[in-house]
Amino acid sequence: PLDHSYSLTTGTTSTELLRKLNEQRDIIALMEVKMKEMKASIRELRVNEAKLQEEVRDRDRLLYGNSSVGASYI
Amino acid sequence: PLDHSYSLTTGTTSTELLRKLNEQRDIIALMEVKMKEMKASIRELRVNEAKLQEEVRDRDRLLYGNSSVGASYI
Repeated sequence: PLDHSYSLTTGTTSTELLRKLNEQRDIIALMEVKMKEMKASIRELRVNEAKLQEEVRDRDRLLYGNSSVGASYI
Repeated sequence: PLDHSYSLTTGTTSTELLRKLNEQRDIIALMEVKMKEMKASIRELRVNEAKLQEEVRDRDRLLYGNSSVGASYI
């Protein structure tokens, strides 16, 4: 399999390496922001999921009475 | 404000820069995997959200009749 490691054999200078290093650092910073946003989305979706499950349960109680809905109804 | 850019003034060698470069590349690869997982989670949660909303609507139809539930019931 190919080795994608950066290597000195390509003749890159320290300045070039430094430029790449700072580019990568910027990419990592952007990815961290993106991941924070995604984490917030997941948290929000989980809260909403719990709320919707509660709404379904509320309606089941209204439809089928106070006992929990389950196999006993089948 | 502090500049967090990597700089040659710290006296780092090309070998050291290369090591850092490969470290960062590994971090980026791990973050990409993590982001893919989070994207899949978000997709799944959105599908589940739509399903639960449909379940709430189904029960509202059973409870309140076929017309859509809305301000007209208040």
